Amino acid sequence: MSDDDLTIDGARLRATLETLATFGAEPSGGVSRTSFSPADAAARAWLRDQCEASGLSQRTDGIGNIVVTVPAPDASEQAAVWTGSHIDSVPDGGRFDGALGSMAALEVVRRLAETRVPLRRPVEMVVFADEEGCYHHLLGSTALVRPYAADELERLRGRDGDRLVDALDALGWDVAAATRTTVPPGTVHAFVELHIEQGAVLESAGTDLGVVTSIVGMGGGALEFIGRADHAGTTPMRLRRDPLRGAGEFLAGLPAVTASISETAVATCGIIAVEPGGANVVPSLARLQLDFRDVRRSSIEALESALVDAARRAAAAHDLEVRYTRDSITDPAPLDPRIQDLIESVASAQGHSTRRMPSGAGHDSQNMSRIAPTGMIFIPSTGGRSHSPAEHSSWEDIERGANVLLRTIVALATE
Amino acid sequence: MSDDDLTIDGARLRATLETLATFGAEPSGGVSRTSFSPADAAARAWLRDQCEASGLSQRTDGIGNIVVTVPAPDASEQAAVWTGSHIDSVPDGGRFDGALGSMAALEVVRRLAETRVPLRRPVEMVVFADEEGCYHHLLGSTALVRPYAADELERLRGRDGDRLVDALDALGWDVAAATRTTVPPGTVHAFVELHIEQGAVLESAGTDLGVVTSIVGMGGGALEFIGRADHAGTTPMRLRRDPLRGAGEFLAGLPAVTASISETAVATCGIIAVEPGGANVVPSLARLQLDFRDVRRSSIEALESALVDAARRAAAAHDLEVRYTRDSITDPAPLDPRIQDLIESVASAQGHSTRRMPSGAGHDSQNMSRIAPTGMIFIPSTGGRSHSPAEHSSWEDIERGANVLLRTIVALATE
Repeated sequence: MSDDDLTIDGARLRATLETLATFGAEPSGGVSRTSFSPADAAARAWLRDQCEASGLSQRTDGIGNIVVTVPAPDASEQAAVWTGSHIDSVPDGGRFDGALGSMAALEVVRRLAETRVPLRRPVEMVVFADEEGCYHHLLGSTALVRPYAADELERLRGRDGDRLVDALDALGWDVAAATRTTVPPGTVHAFVELHIEQGAVLESAGTDLGVVTSIVGMGGGALEFIGRADHAGTTPMRLRRDPLRGAGEFLAGLPAVTASISETAVATCGIIAVEPGGANVVPSLARLQLDFRDVRRSSIEALESALVDAARRAAAAHDLEVRYTRDSITDPAPLDPRIQDLIESVASAQGHSTRRMPSGAGHDSQNMSRIAPTGMIFIPSTGGRSHSPAEHSSWEDIERGANVLLRTIVALATE
Repeated sequence: MSDDDLTIDGARLRATLETLATFGAEPSGGVSRTSFSPADAAARAWLRDQCEASGLSQRTDGIGNIVVTVPAPDASEQAAVWTGSHIDSVPDGGRFDGALGSMAALEVVRRLAETRVPLRRPVEMVVFADEEGCYHHLLGSTALVRPYAADELERLRGRDGDRLVDALDALGWDVAAATRTTVPPGTVHAFVELHIEQGAVLESAGTDLGVVTSIVGMGGGALEFIGRADHAGTTPMRLRRDPLRGAGEFLAGLPAVTASISETAVATCGIIAVEPGGANVVPSLARLQLDFRDVRRSSIEALESALVDAARRAAAAHDLEVRYTRDSITDPAPLDPRIQDLIESVASAQGHSTRRMPSGAGHDSQNMSRIAPTGMIFIPSTGGRSHSPAEHSSWEDIERGANVLLRTIVALATE
């Protein structure tokens, strides 16, 4: 069998994705498989069995990352090519976010083991722990690139208030080993992750695959419009200082603010609260939680400034004050140009159209890019829906993406 | 002593207001004296003692209304002139809302008893139970104009979830009597209530007193803007259906909507909620609780239509749907023109400027107006603040208002 004939087993990939979706299945059609939950533990046990049945050796590190190895005979000392994603989900999430990249990686290592493609480097399949951040966003991949201190782990708590260290202990893992999970420098030759887009860009453009250029950086902050509480019946409209007037003008104008920065900039208010919050009281304060992203640190900072300026203008127009508190800014993670070229040529050779695009969502790839050249492949998400039971991609797109992943991994593992 | 020399005792009025403010006093400077609370019970006991010391006969009806009588010798069968307000407060409310009209009424009946002004009708001071609606808004005055059914009372619960009937029982009252509280038809000649404005109209106009023309009607409803939840990172701005864009445009435009109806129309959103409510999720839905008021039923209905139309326009501009659910509309209560004239002439004779104005807030007077000619006198509220520890009126304005009340009551009780 030549490399060019090598394909994944589409029926088996579909079957593993469908079986994985039974762990934590919800009546909604989605899954609730948050990290270290019973559903997650059952999925992990099933995955172990799958690997054993395929004769693949595996290990789980102290923080719950699963690593499955396809050795390269006579080249076991070479830096390995890694691929993978995560199998944890958000509560009532979809069946493809993370699951696709994980089951496609399983298919890759199975095919490599079955076909005994001559490798010049080991290939490692990885399932990262807690990508969705029940305890900490990107927990597992963070632990691969820098050690967690014991007291830091002690402090991490889950969405329901339970301690991470108790969750790890309950799963029978050595909590002390959770501080010793970093990958030795130079041992990773490259990392490639297949993922659903989670947006509607590919679908609306009619493009087969996305080649990710960078994972956007993200800023967050709290924006408060401050007015004066008044009686909703006795205060004429002209005498009010209603913070929702300013907040409303600001929210309606968000698209204009992002457009002033770049085509890729986005800004979202997903949480809003007013005080005092009585039906018959003009609010004294409206608090907006902002999430803003772009592909460059400089444009994230410019976006933040433009948002605050727009808020100040809206506040001034309605006799309000405004207060902004930055929570944090995460740097964008540019992905490796050579791997982008490689993915593009592999896709092109298979007759697929591609589009270079940033990832608006965070991924474990942003951590892996700190220790190795990293690439990401996106397949279309129907309607752009994600983190919801409505998350969907076609089996055709799934098989297409997995085959491009396979060829890309083979290319990297044979160089 | 001629009627023209009759004045209230300003020092005593101030002392009773200051003493009343000690019941439920908060560190904030405000008071928490919600109906039937220990603080309310203590204030009631103190008020009983005050009346006894002044030789005034009193009774408390089954729902907690206190009525203190100044008899008219030889005219006890005549319909009585009533005056009063309430002594319950909102949590951490002010020291004047209700308290002013109650203590001024106490001062009126004390002065009438002390001076033995020859009355042609009895004068009754009333303290209405639970005006602020810990159990039911305007509970006591409602019970005077129509009987509560036993099962209706059984169902009423307080802000903290306790049952009204348990609260009445705990105060030692006969719960069965709570269904027999209505005032016999024709027994009330007139009712006049002195109250703080709770708005800033008088202060900003530099007017001494307000003569209330009507108590506005009130509409309430829930307005929902419906879009689509999307990932805050992966969904470009142009592909979003963000309900906060439509809600924002609507909120910023509220003053234009009310101005299109009348000068007196007001509309307020005091509660806003978004779903799903995640910092990194474009909301699927924004729910606005609306409160809208005006002086005529027809204009309240026109205002409601204009609000829904404005919401539809804002929704259409941002590819959203809109859903409106009316909670209720309360009819406005016009006050008696003859009593308005009387108050105005009494105030004018004392050299005070007046302004006819609607009351934007609900008051027990709106119930009393259903059984008797009713009037209300407003004094200025500093900065329009109310339902807050910042509620304030000057002692000069308080004394002025109480004297106009006294002369108005005397005029009504001697006709």
